[in-house]
Amino acid sequence: MSALWQRRPVGIVGLGLIGGSLGLDLLARGAEVRALVHRQATAERARERGLVSQVSTDPSLLQDCGLVLLALPLDRLLDPEPSLLAALPPDAVITDVGSVKGPVVAAWETLLGPEGSRRFVGSHPMAGTALSGVEAGVADLFRGRPWVVTPSVGTDPEAVEAVRQLAEALGSLWIRCDASDHDRAVALISHLPVLVSAALLLGADRGAAAGAGGEPGSGDHDSREPSDLPDLMRALASSGFADTSRVGGGNPELGTWMARWNREALLDALAHYRRALDGLERAVLEQNWSELHSQLSSSQQLRPAFLQAPLPPVQG
Amino acid sequence: MSALWQRRPVGIVGLGLIGGSLGLDLLARGAEVRALVHRQATAERARERGLVSQVSTDPSLLQDCGLVLLALPLDRLLDPEPSLLAALPPDAVITDVGSVKGPVVAAWETLLGPEGSRRFVGSHPMAGTALSGVEAGVADLFRGRPWVVTPSVGTDPEAVEAVRQLAEALGSLWIRCDASDHDRAVALISHLPVLVSAALLLGADRGAAAGAGGEPGSGDHDSREPSDLPDLMRALASSGFADTSRVGGGNPELGTWMARWNREALLDALAHYRRALDGLERAVLEQNWSELHSQLSSSQQLRPAFLQAPLPPVQG
Repeated sequence: MSALWQRRPVGIVGLGLIGGSLGLDLLARGAEVRALVHRQATAERARERGLVSQVSTDPSLLQDCGLVLLALPLDRLLDPEPSLLAALPPDAVITDVGSVKGPVVAAWETLLGPEGSRRFVGSHPMAGTALSGVEAGVADLFRGRPWVVTPSVGTDPEAVEAVRQLAEALGSLWIRCDASDHDRAVALISHLPVLVSAALLLGADRGAAAGAGGEPGSGDHDSREPSDLPDLMRALASSGFADTSRVGGGNPELGTWMARWNREALLDALAHYRRALDGLERAVLEQNWSELHSQLSSSQQLRPAFLQAPLPPVQG
Repeated sequence: MSALWQRRPVGIVGLGLIGGSLGLDLLARGAEVRALVHRQATAERARERGLVSQVSTDPSLLQDCGLVLLALPLDRLLDPEPSLLAALPPDAVITDVGSVKGPVVAAWETLLGPEGSRRFVGSHPMAGTALSGVEAGVADLFRGRPWVVTPSVGTDPEAVEAVRQLAEALGSLWIRCDASDHDRAVALISHLPVLVSAALLLGADRGAAAGAGGEPGSGDHDSREPSDLPDLMRALASSGFADTSRVGGGNPELGTWMARWNREALLDALAHYRRALDGLERAVLEQNWSELHSQLSSSQQLRPAFLQAPLPPVQG
């Protein structure tokens, strides 16, 4: 039998980077795709770009959809409009694309009730670019990228299978795990780096200001006085600083949401990070160079292990 | 009048990445280049690669050189062999390529004495690749990259000029500043990122081990148990983790030298970093999301300012 996304229309709620990219891929594979958006201007632009089959600001567009993908930002996903909830077909499989899973699964299982929640499958397709909005969607965004699902004990296995068939049709790597494991993993490998990297920018600015005798963040970055430390730092900053500071220079909205909705796991990750940093600093303070060398050798060895190619599915 | 490097042979001590690249560039510009190396095998390979005009393990090769570039690793630069010191021509301009300047300038000014030290010019050509050794040297490594010099009050202006003519012939951006300013700047933009990034790898490993119930660094990275947190982290780690961890996964020898020879400035940089990280963590702890957003907005704005194109020379 063909997959659910092939037999019945697929609904997408929101046409930003993820929603628009899902639309393009599903259309290209012959699905009928109906998108619900907030603003008329988005609907018009989505039509011009040919992102989906139909697009509307009227939630009734979702009727008859067999599968609905909630491609909303975290704040709207966690507090959806009543009109959206009312318009979801009672028999549709519902999934989302949120980057934090525990709070999303808990919120939607409550919203959908004991029966409806069996058809909700928490998803996190891990793909992205620096862009957002209706212009951002691109074809093949999900190919070769993880599509994490976090079903609960009560989730209907057929609902999970319907999401799997869709994810694999887009070329994603299917990874199934507990919501809490997902949230701990992304806290360590995705949310912690944002704070570590932002602190580098803020700390370097503090150091520059202390050296220049000015105030941090005073914005006086065009001073050309002799021996101006901020000027010198800018002249010498190279690829090492650029790479380490990249994610800390990203969208502050996303960083704040991640911290807000994955707060416990992030604080736990920060505690582990602090102990590691303490160990390095102690070696420098104590001039224990063999210890510092040993710790830096460990970190050198750890990196390829963390970045090896994704493994086949982890079954949760 | 032509530049010193055009009028008299140029000596290079050491043919690793920097020394070999200097040799290739100077040869290409018509200089006579004589290299002193430690091992016979290096000399043979340098001849095969055509890195310099002459190469030898005998320090007397340096006689007649008008300019000598000390392209040694920091440990050997700070504790040079007596035979090297004895072989340096008394009238030659001497410069180095060390990534820390205060201790190098102090050591060499002592070694060369009150008169000889006037011809010593501390240099830091800031170029690099991930490679090292006699195979690493490449043409045009220095083009468009900063060449920092840190002359002292007593340094002969003609010696500085001789180094400037060489640096500019290679296409470098000439930057002159105090040794202490150089060391503070590289502590913040080059050495601090190494520790910040290494701590991310070590902290993520601690978090993974805590989640898996194992020991950090146990190396049990091939376990395929269900819900294995380290497995899941590896499957989900993407470009954000890769970039933020890159310099922390580098050569532990270099990281240890930087910390050892720039210890005070690095500890100062770490203190600034900790205050910045404390501020971010406090906002998360206190659930002060507007404060976190404001700090992440600052870091977003700071990054382009730090990474703008290098300015014209900072005069020290």
